[in-house]
Amino acid sequence: MINKLVDKIKKTNAPIVVGLDPMPAYIPEHLVKKAFAEYGETLQGMGEAVFAYNKGIIDAVSDLVPAVKPQIAMYEQFGLEGLKAFKKTVDYAHEKDLVVIGDIKRGDIGSTSEAYAVAHLGKVTVGSNRFAAFDEDFATVNPYLGSDGVNPFIKVCKEEKKGIFVLVKTSNPSSGEFQDRLIDHRPLYEIVGEQVAKWGQDCMGDSYSYVGAVVGATYPEMGKVLRALMPKSFILVPGYGAQGGKGSDLKPFFDQNGLGAIVNSSRGIIAAYKQEKYASYGAEGFADAAREAVIEMSRDIRENALA
Amino acid sequence: MINKLVDKIKKTNAPIVVGLDPMPAYIPEHLVKKAFAEYGETLQGMGEAVFAYNKGIIDAVSDLVPAVKPQIAMYEQFGLEGLKAFKKTVDYAHEKDLVVIGDIKRGDIGSTSEAYAVAHLGKVTVGSNRFAAFDEDFATVNPYLGSDGVNPFIKVCKEEKKGIFVLVKTSNPSSGEFQDRLIDHRPLYEIVGEQVAKWGQDCMGDSYSYVGAVVGATYPEMGKVLRALMPKSFILVPGYGAQGGKGSDLKPFFDQNGLGAIVNSSRGIIAAYKQEKYASYGAEGFADAAREAVIEMSRDIRENALA
Repeated sequence: MINKLVDKIKKTNAPIVVGLDPMPAYIPEHLVKKAFAEYGETLQGMGEAVFAYNKGIIDAVSDLVPAVKPQIAMYEQFGLEGLKAFKKTVDYAHEKDLVVIGDIKRGDIGSTSEAYAVAHLGKVTVGSNRFAAFDEDFATVNPYLGSDGVNPFIKVCKEEKKGIFVLVKTSNPSSGEFQDRLIDHRPLYEIVGEQVAKWGQDCMGDSYSYVGAVVGATYPEMGKVLRALMPKSFILVPGYGAQGGKGSDLKPFFDQNGLGAIVNSSRGIIAAYKQEKYASYGAEGFADAAREAVIEMSRDIRENALA
Repeated sequence: MINKLVDKIKKTNAPIVVGLDPMPAYIPEHLVKKAFAEYGETLQGMGEAVFAYNKGIIDAVSDLVPAVKPQIAMYEQFGLEGLKAFKKTVDYAHEKDLVVIGDIKRGDIGSTSEAYAVAHLGKVTVGSNRFAAFDEDFATVNPYLGSDGVNPFIKVCKEEKKGIFVLVKTSNPSSGEFQDRLIDHRPLYEIVGEQVAKWGQDCMGDSYSYVGAVVGATYPEMGKVLRALMPKSFILVPGYGAQGGKGSDLKPFFDQNGLGAIVNSSRGIIAAYKQEKYASYGAEGFADAAREAVIEMSRDIRENALA
């Protein structure tokens, strides 16, 4: 799947992943009204509104970008109906030949971590049948529990030719609280990054490993160090746009081939219609506004990060 | 909810939480057969088998213990049907007046962490209605992303009078890979533990904070240090039994009042019928075997940890 991701990035010339984080406040009113009219002010109604929103975005951007990244928390809060919308979103993105990165930040140990890996990347055995529960292509994984937590994901990745992005240095202001603490004069995120490179060594695609890393756009200096520490790991870069990261900040995350990183934007794309710049599209034109925002982000990255 | 947990521990005289981790290999064959006969070898069939198993265990132990801890990964692997069984398990445990600790190990940032908190401990707003998606009483939380990840949980805990257990030192062999690394001559888990104590300061129940910690039974020396560092935090202690922790290892996790800790056992109780010691119960008697294993664990803790 890492090979497919790289191929699609080359074809679209856009190392961009669209974050499908359908915060209720982002969903255009007409979609919510329509869903409520049909299903009432219920969890099912919200699930329908969420999926209609995602479908609109996916239809508008699927020829421009290689991947989408649904953030499962935004679906999980609506319970089973929300998770049904998550699954429908994964399936619909696959129909449109998009790579799907499940932003699930799971992590446990042993058979429990394996159950998460099976849930999101693998297939579960039921009697003589096998089922894929959520079926993403990549998943984000939390490393705090060490190799016991990550290795079961790697096992499933090898079986299914799928991949993970391990949290190394996250984009948020307080990420330094633990991640930046010095261990033998080096910050924890470097120790984790080094381990990511090790984990990735024996599950290589053509050019990059199945094991990638998450490093926030908001920390470009750290991105530079981590890029060098994990030469074969793809970096998933959140924090562009709404969180403060700019195109020029992204340079250090890419390697000498202009590859090796994929930049996420969620709000900046899916809620573009709420920005003054795209206000003329109106809420009804949310999908066109999203398309326009992708085109502009793509230009920003080409001109300021990859030039 | 921390007050209810403490009260129930005092009443049952058993600081024990039964881990409802229904690994397919643990589920007695007759329950699987029955569910498959009715629903086929499907995800729905597995969901039914899982719930029947949990219901048997809950019925057998609900008068002996204060709490159960379903491990969501074991349900998530069966997709929506698995998560339906999770929700039914939470609701059934509540009917039996048990405290429910959702072992979800979630953690993200800002509005995303808040969505997880809402999903598991709070209520989500849909139009003019409010719904509880999964409705546990406590949740386990991963601290790697720092305060930005934990504070949204605390906000919801305050609103709902619920609680969290933050991963500090986990029970697995490789937990030291990052958690034991020295920062200013102190291991990372102590830094995290100190932060847990801080997070917990302004959301106190009668005697303990809404913010607890996870510390593995397999590391009693570290438990002693952490007990002192987080005097007001309840400690959820995994790793007893199958993972190697013994009753005598548990002493350091309790405070001078013989409280402040709750010990989890999963396999050792729910799959007790597979142990030689309880083999006479047979698979059909899995629930009675579980009850017997709880009684023995309770005795072990009273005699070797609390005496």
